Amino acid sequence: MISKIMMDYVANSSVIRAMFEEGKKLSKIYGEENVFDFSLGNPNVEPPDSIKKAVVEVISEESPNLVHGYMSNSGYLDVRASIADNICKKHNINLNEDNIVMTCGAAGGLNILLKTLLDPGDEVISFSPFFGEYANYVRNFNGKLVISPSNIDTFQPDLESFKDSITAKTKAVIINSPNNPTGVVYSEDTIKNLSEILEEKQRELGSSIYLISDEPYREIVYDGVKVPYILKYYKNSFIAYSFSKSLSLPGERIGYIVCHSEIEDFNNVIQALNVANRILGFVNAPSLFQRVIGKCLDSEVDINIYKKNRDLLYNHLIKIGFSCVKPDGAFYLFPKSLIPDDREFAKEAKKFNLLIVPGSTFGCPEHFRLSYCISYDKIERSLPQFDKLAQVYLK
Amino acid sequence: MISKIMMDYVANSSVIRAMFEEGKKLSKIYGEENVFDFSLGNPNVEPPDSIKKAVVEVISEESPNLVHGYMSNSGYLDVRASIADNICKKHNINLNEDNIVMTCGAAGGLNILLKTLLDPGDEVISFSPFFGEYANYVRNFNGKLVISPSNIDTFQPDLESFKDSITAKTKAVIINSPNNPTGVVYSEDTIKNLSEILEEKQRELGSSIYLISDEPYREIVYDGVKVPYILKYYKNSFIAYSFSKSLSLPGERIGYIVCHSEIEDFNNVIQALNVANRILGFVNAPSLFQRVIGKCLDSEVDINIYKKNRDLLYNHLIKIGFSCVKPDGAFYLFPKSLIPDDREFAKEAKKFNLLIVPGSTFGCPEHFRLSYCISYDKIERSLPQFDKLAQVYLK
Repeated sequence: MISKIMMDYVANSSVIRAMFEEGKKLSKIYGEENVFDFSLGNPNVEPPDSIKKAVVEVISEESPNLVHGYMSNSGYLDVRASIADNICKKHNINLNEDNIVMTCGAAGGLNILLKTLLDPGDEVISFSPFFGEYANYVRNFNGKLVISPSNIDTFQPDLESFKDSITAKTKAVIINSPNNPTGVVYSEDTIKNLSEILEEKQRELGSSIYLISDEPYREIVYDGVKVPYILKYYKNSFIAYSFSKSLSLPGERIGYIVCHSEIEDFNNVIQALNVANRILGFVNAPSLFQRVIGKCLDSEVDINIYKKNRDLLYNHLIKIGFSCVKPDGAFYLFPKSLIPDDREFAKEAKKFNLLIVPGSTFGCPEHFRLSYCISYDKIERSLPQFDKLAQVYLK
Repeated sequence: MISKIMMDYVANSSVIRAMFEEGKKLSKIYGEENVFDFSLGNPNVEPPDSIKKAVVEVISEESPNLVHGYMSNSGYLDVRASIADNICKKHNINLNEDNIVMTCGAAGGLNILLKTLLDPGDEVISFSPFFGEYANYVRNFNGKLVISPSNIDTFQPDLESFKDSITAKTKAVIINSPNNPTGVVYSEDTIKNLSEILEEKQRELGSSIYLISDEPYREIVYDGVKVPYILKYYKNSFIAYSFSKSLSLPGERIGYIVCHSEIEDFNNVIQALNVANRILGFVNAPSLFQRVIGKCLDSEVDINIYKKNRDLLYNHLIKIGFSCVKPDGAFYLFPKSLIPDDREFAKEAKKFNLLIVPGSTFGCPEHFRLSYCISYDKIERSLPQFDKLAQVYLK
């Protein structure tokens, strides 16, 4: 007899994961090349060669007990120092190793942050559409996720509604830019205005409200668009970073938290993150990959591959009558579905071997998400299927 | 302002970790070679050569997107199948890949198990002395850790007291053999009797009580002693295994859960473990190291090194007047302190540059823990310091 809360989870088990199983079934019937799975965010671009080289270097040159052993729960000091230096260089900001806590990916980072911050009943605000796991992460610590809407024409947060959603119980705000599922990058104006609202509300309520920026897609941006670095705009801020997408290493569970130097209660926050890393069972971010990414901070995957995919898919969808905010980053499109019922629409798409995720999964119905981190060739071959799907509704 | 619960944790921050910092301070004053740090369980024996070989093989021969990518939250199917085969061979039992969930070490495994099982207020029983983290892990899921005593002359659980501690709220029992901090291996009699009590109580209470065996030290045993495999004795059982000690890879966070085939609610349990892996932020066990250990299941570190350490330290302590249960496994001794106040005793030991952990940390005062996973030479040089410490009290 599993716990009641897990019964609940198992019953509602991830729509995305169910899609994955469905895809495998369809592949068996129609052949893998004829099933177009746009449901998963598993990068298909290969990691840069520097990763393999770094793995070999680390295990050949460094002591095995250092490479595979325990270190501080925050991670290796030299790796944290390299990361801090790299951020300083890229973003013209002042940080050192004390600002960095190595984590098991951004998912691990978000969990230790929420463990650190939340008392039972505390509220965390995020913006729809939002990555569904946020609700689960907040619930892990007996908190409550409050969803504030975005402007549906731009997918920038609706800041007026946001202001109204802040209460004395608001402990944190999670933003995600470039965004999953929209691909949209929050503009500097958005970040500035959002920060001002938070400052004002902190004063008004006499509380601390922490801004957490979930940034696994930071490096996946196109056409020279800049992603504002939130530490420059708001003091009570954290970044949860991951190398999952920037270096195509999602299975390795490697990322880090950056903590603003002037955050309230800095020392306690860092100590608590360390304790949380330990007691939630992460203990530390995987050791070999800490050392590996320390050597690959200037590497990145070939973003152009994703950009070409975006352009191909976006242009075609627009041409055949879909409407979609053109995204500047990540590897997702979030078009409007052709009927209000997005779950029904996803079912219809499946008839054409198109696996898509209904927007409701992200708290934003009447839309659907396409992950275009699959091969260009496959996207090309999927286009006639989208034509057929559109014809069901648009003829 | 961090959460109240974390304030609490930070204030009481791990005695063991504090020791570690203290050790570094003393090393600066007296030189590292003159400080005898018996406080940490960081293996000093090197991983077997097969690890390095396997790392190179995997990254040379397998596709990078497979090696570093997402897989099922349970882990790679082929790796899980190899582990199941290996267990079948070693323990003459029937398992397959469906019984195995790959985890971020045993700490990750215990956390996803407790997330899967516990409703708020549920009780989990463990035996003193116990690994202090159990209390934190149980608290993560709003459960309550109940401590049942061991027989102080053998450190086998006192099963009469155990029986009395089981209530309608008891959801799980955690055992740890070879044990941290005593090094003792639970005998087959212990496991049989404990299982019978659980069967009887399940019938009497009409409830399910899950037995969780935390086994990071399973392979670290001496003199041919056998560690009973609990799946053979009790149906509602899990094993949380780790390669941290058997292959000296604690930093890599790699382990697995074994779930008994006839456990109540098997399918839901496995699904819930998958969901828990995902939503607690582990997502999956680190991918490269899943593939690496899949190739090293017959490897182990040189146990003899630990055995020699045990013999040297144990024999000397007994000779100079300490009393200690002679342990058959792990790399810990848990002698009686020479005065009732074990914290005071640890302070006195520090005057002789001996870093030891008071038994109270493990819920068992009047004792202290020595981790002998340090070099033989260092243990040899520490012996005169133990002589001096003993002379304070025994002259």
